[in-house]
Amino acid sequence: MVHAPSAASWTPVRPPRNAPPVRINLYSDTQTRPTPAMKEAMMRAEVGDEQHGDDPTVWELCDRMAALMGKEAAMFLPSGTMCNVVAILTHCQKGDEVIAHETSHILHSEGGTHAALTGVQIMGLKGARGMFTADDLRAAIRPRTRYAPPQRLLEIEQTANIGGGAVWPLATLNELTGIAREQGWATHMDGARLLNATVAAGIAPAEMVAGFDSVWLDFTKGLGAPLGAVLCGSREFIDAAWRWKQRLGGSMRQGGICAAACIHALDHHVDRLAEDHANARDLARGLGQIEGVVVEEPDTNLVFFDIKGTGVSVETLQKRLMEKGIMVSGLGGRVRACTHLDVTPAMIPEAVSAIREALAA
Amino acid sequence: MVHAPSAASWTPVRPPRNAPPVRINLYSDTQTRPTPAMKEAMMRAEVGDEQHGDDPTVWELCDRMAALMGKEAAMFLPSGTMCNVVAILTHCQKGDEVIAHETSHILHSEGGTHAALTGVQIMGLKGARGMFTADDLRAAIRPRTRYAPPQRLLEIEQTANIGGGAVWPLATLNELTGIAREQGWATHMDGARLLNATVAAGIAPAEMVAGFDSVWLDFTKGLGAPLGAVLCGSREFIDAAWRWKQRLGGSMRQGGICAAACIHALDHHVDRLAEDHANARDLARGLGQIEGVVVEEPDTNLVFFDIKGTGVSVETLQKRLMEKGIMVSGLGGRVRACTHLDVTPAMIPEAVSAIREALAA
Amino acid sequence: MVHAPSAASWTPVRPPRNAPPVRINLYSDTQTRPTPAMKEAMMRAEVGDEQHGDDPTVWELCDRMAALMGKEAAMFLPSGTMCNVVAILTHCQKGDEVIAHETSHILHSEGGTHAALTGVQIMGLKGARGMFTADDLRAAIRPRTRYAPPQRLLEIEQTANIGGGAVWPLATLNELTGIAREQGWATHMDGARLLNATVAAGIAPAEMVAGFDSVWLDFTKGLGAPLGAVLCGSREFIDAAWRWKQRLGGSMRQGGICAAACIHALDHHVDRLAEDHANARDLARGLGQIEGVVVEEPDTNLVFFDIKGTGVSVETLQKRLMEKGIMVSGLGGRVRACTHLDVTPAMIPEAVSAIREALAA
Amino acid sequence: MVHAPSAASWTPVRPPRNAPPVRINLYSDTQTRPTPAMKEAMMRAEVGDEQHGDDPTVWELCDRMAALMGKEAAMFLPSGTMCNVVAILTHCQKGDEVIAHETSHILHSEGGTHAALTGVQIMGLKGARGMFTADDLRAAIRPRTRYAPPQRLLEIEQTANIGGGAVWPLATLNELTGIAREQGWATHMDGARLLNATVAAGIAPAEMVAGFDSVWLDFTKGLGAPLGAVLCGSREFIDAAWRWKQRLGGSMRQGGICAAACIHALDHHVDRLAEDHANARDLARGLGQIEGVVVEEPDTNLVFFDIKGTGVSVETLQKRLMEKGIMVSGLGGRVRACTHLDVTPAMIPEAVSAIREALAA
Repeated sequence: MVHAPSAASWTPVRPPRNAPPVRINLYSDTQTRPTPAMKEAMMRAEVGDEQHGDDPTVWELCDRMAALMGKEAAMFLPSGTMCNVVAILTHCQKGDEVIAHETSHILHSEGGTHAALTGVQIMGLKGARGMFTADDLRAAIRPRTRYAPPQRLLEIEQTANIGGGAVWPLATLNELTGIAREQGWATHMDGARLLNATVAAGIAPAEMVAGFDSVWLDFTKGLGAPLGAVLCGSREFIDAAWRWKQRLGGSMRQGGICAAACIHALDHHVDRLAEDHANARDLARGLGQIEGVVVEEPDTNLVFFDIKGTGVSVETLQKRLMEKGIMVSGLGGRVRACTHLDVTPAMIPEAVSAIREALAA
Repeated sequence: MVHAPSAASWTPVRPPRNAPPVRINLYSDTQTRPTPAMKEAMMRAEVGDEQHGDDPTVWELCDRMAALMGKEAAMFLPSGTMCNVVAILTHCQKGDEVIAHETSHILHSEGGTHAALTGVQIMGLKGARGMFTADDLRAAIRPRTRYAPPQRLLEIEQTANIGGGAVWPLATLNELTGIAREQGWATHMDGARLLNATVAAGIAPAEMVAGFDSVWLDFTKGLGAPLGAVLCGSREFIDAAWRWKQRLGGSMRQGGICAAACIHALDHHVDRLAEDHANARDLARGLGQIEGVVVEEPDTNLVFFDIKGTGVSVETLQKRLMEKGIMVSGLGGRVRACTHLDVTPAMIPEAVSAIREALAA
Repeated sequence: MVHAPSAASWTPVRPPRNAPPVRINLYSDTQTRPTPAMKEAMMRAEVGDEQHGDDPTVWELCDRMAALMGKEAAMFLPSGTMCNVVAILTHCQKGDEVIAHETSHILHSEGGTHAALTGVQIMGLKGARGMFTADDLRAAIRPRTRYAPPQRLLEIEQTANIGGGAVWPLATLNELTGIAREQGWATHMDGARLLNATVAAGIAPAEMVAGFDSVWLDFTKGLGAPLGAVLCGSREFIDAAWRWKQRLGGSMRQGGICAAACIHALDHHVDRLAEDHANARDLARGLGQIEGVVVEEPDTNLVFFDIKGTGVSVETLQKRLMEKGIMVSGLGGRVRACTHLDVTPAMIPEAVSAIREALAA
Repeated sequence: MVHAPSAASWTPVRPPRNAPPVRINLYSDTQTRPTPAMKEAMMRAEVGDEQHGDDPTVWELCDRMAALMGKEAAMFLPSGTMCNVVAILTHCQKGDEVIAHETSHILHSEGGTHAALTGVQIMGLKGARGMFTADDLRAAIRPRTRYAPPQRLLEIEQTANIGGGAVWPLATLNELTGIAREQGWATHMDGARLLNATVAAGIAPAEMVAGFDSVWLDFTKGLGAPLGAVLCGSREFIDAAWRWKQRLGGSMRQGGICAAACIHALDHHVDRLAEDHANARDLARGLGQIEGVVVEEPDTNLVFFDIKGTGVSVETLQKRLMEKGIMVSGLGGRVRACTHLDVTPAMIPEAVSAIREALAA
């Protein structure tokens, strides 16, 4: 009975055999490659059977992260998406409603997984730069009737990706989590790029997430690890979350090899995020001088710009840049350039020139 | 781990022992009581075991409805909500996305059931009077990627309740279902008050719903039956839907007693919906002359009005009217008055006077 | 990707146009037709909008049932299957395990609905006549590990349909619910034919179900009402269950018309179940004298018999009886004959003769 | 409303600080540690963003596995449990029934995940050594009615863990998949230890799994990799499975580091499984000579033995062995000893002696 949308393929596409090498990868900070020092840390890691509690390196990472986030406990998972899946499965029951920004990753980029697996409805609030206010949240509170879905969870994405990598101010976060507490809701932070926010704001992670019941950090973005994310919360929360880690197939064996890369990143790749932000500002400045380009001022490492004024389409720009070994991404009509570990200051002026030429062609 | 929102009760409240009788019930067309003639039809009904296929009256109702809607087959269900639940379970798979208006009943008034039971995400489109356009729908088409939820179903509520009982024009419906067909989506009409729309527009039901794969009609609203709704579609759709009717506990035994009331309603209560619409227009006209009241011009039997200009709250108005045996409902800051079988033309001026007094007090 | 099992139809089949009338219906007690007195009670019923709490007859039925079952509260639902669906949705979370007999209705006759809607796994215990013992239950207790599904609910079907309408003894029920309480499990009774059990055992319903957190009674079987079942439990349980009644589309409008039939049944059709049991015993005695037939001694109104010794297949027997206007059902290789309101003592010898002839032919 | 089973913790327990080192680990083949050569292969791996299709090492592993299994396509996942989860989500719809052995991993050791996430019911068939026959399967075919859950998938675990590591014979597999094909069911092999079966039987993997629509292999058991499993099937199946990989959070970034370990295992750790089997046989022979011990003859690398005859409990045996740095597992009243990469022939007599002493004490 199910109607099949017309054919499409979900399998990733292999790069063409003779694709030119990517020299400047502004596509995403997920594409960072592990450094030699990180690899050495991985090789040296003492390991065990993670799901039996025998991997000391995984425990070390979890302890480090719980301390950094000011939470009682932490859990290592294969990906950030799984952190969101596990957290929502743990906080919510089927039929509950989650409140998030209308541009949030959980609404648009996780394949409908939260409706599919947890059975929650997500109410998307409006607001500039991927953020909303306490007034917006108060206006979204539903009456408690048999007819309305019960509201259960406030979700915040820090930084707000589609909002241009915007940093939710601490005061706003605290107001929002205060309202949630009044309402008896849980609070969850999608911290895919949380450390970009804390570095940019100069606020300790534990302080920034103090109002949240759960928070996770992705190690495969600006932090440069090959695989893994860590979800933090109360001991009770993490204990309940273990059921879902196991059920989803997120329990690992000698996971310490990957955890070691994350520990290395905590030691060596956090403070340097400020360099990525400086590179992003330089990039934005350069792009802003190109005729017809409208650039959003970056808070962190994501630079969104609009090229409609140039008459060149996003796809055309991408194609022309690709010929020069430069990669950017297109997101809803805008272009996104992302700075990270593998993007050096010297690449910025080169990227700006290449983009200027590609738009002029 | 699940956070419990602060105490609230989901059980309906019994009316107070010495509640004054409701003389003019503008609260909802769901509150109509079966007429003596309808009850006689129920008593005369030939019945059998419905879920074994042995109830001739249920078959008669299904045949009548399939013919009226121009579909191959039909199914009797205990309620309109169950029609939506069964239809979405039949059309969609978990993780799919349904596109509907942002004020739709399936988003706000069915307790999150479609996320809970089918596992779908509902994208709510904006648009005046509970309706959107072909351009709005085209702008909502997602790229087909692994990251986005697959879009599967277009849902339209005819009439649009929160839109003020507005009637979606046939041309718009046909444009929208045309886009859906191009995209490979199924189409479903929540026809809770569909016959109000067809009577108001002077269009035959089968013509109005020709573009839809499934459609249902509620018999407990303007049609005045005590219980039941009928879902229509292709033979293949209804066959698949039977699985869900059974699984939800929607299969009945001697359901013909209730089906007989629906058949009676088809014979006697359809054309008279025009009277309800005339009463609604009269009511709107009367209310429009009250200082501080802003009335929306009704298409059908629902009259929404805003009393913010009077300084009286919706709750106060409801309480004052209740003392006079008059009931209206409050919906998101507005007042809704609904005309139906149990509302006579003579009641309209009385209701207007009572509302005027209640707002002046 | 989903593999389609080869074609089958789920829609009930309409009876052939010139089917002979069924004179002796031993197929199922679900096929009873409302009596004239019951219909009169329905017509006289005072009604209102049930889901708004305004139907006095539904409240009266719920009050009567709560008192009869010795529970705090009760809820009217369209069917017994929906009582099971609502109860399991209310007691359990997805991933939980329910413990029931391996022949139970929830495992085989509800279309996989509890996996589909609640997401529970059902562990089926073995045991003669559809029943198991305290030792069987103790042996089924799982260790509490991350790997095993958490056990949450004990479900008992009273009487045990596939067990031959067997009556679980009160002492066994109390032992089983005692173990469940020790384990922190909830307990639920599928009381489709509960009053057959209480009448046969001479035990008051409230005493028989004292150990259970929830219990329901079907009014469409031996009690002869056209539609409806009532689920009982604590006030907290019924309050939570209202969410699911609403979400499933089990809330009704002027449901009092159907509730009135149930009240009539409580007043007039309970004590007479003893007659059905006497008829069943007579039927069993008669069938036992047919060569090659092995009859199970009935506890209540269900007579199961094995005709393998006669060389005639179940389908052939059914067909031959149908020609004489007699209907029986076939269940897993056995024949089931069911006595009820529409089966008189005089029909028993006629049925026995007809079966003897059909098996001799 | 949900009853909370009495307190238990799902979080793995950290080993005590001064736990004696494990010298002979017979607990599980999941506890193998990556060899130096395997680690070197990991370090040398060329990597990319796996979920964008840019990781050449992951593609190489998938190509190798598809060829080995004789399937069109393959997918890399973080764990074997996730292979089962993804496969069942892809093959089935909610409410479907899966047929498996009653001791299968999916029924007892995956936390009820298939009911929770896919919404399927699992029917567990009986049979010695974790296996059933074609007759058993035929007897389990349900009639196609609205009441029975639709049967959709046959699942086979090769080798059968709780069956003692038994190898399903190829002829049986082909008979079973033949029946499934007749019925229109899909077929799935849980190949956690598939290569133990193919090595023991001397049959090529592609031949052994030819009748199956999907099959996966775990690299973290006898093959010794730290993390990962590969699911194989038709191109259409793997394409649909990608949706679920993404939704579950099973997509990785620079996954090639882990895939390289798997490729190394395919090159170096397959043929040597025969040594594990020889060690298991030696161990079984030695244990069989201990008074009161009943040993099951091993087909592969799992040795199950019963010590009830010795008067020593499984827990006591485990504790006494642990003091000597030897680990075994207890499974449902039996002891399981598992041979693997980190168990040398020289350890076998030592283990036997230690077990003899521990049982004599």
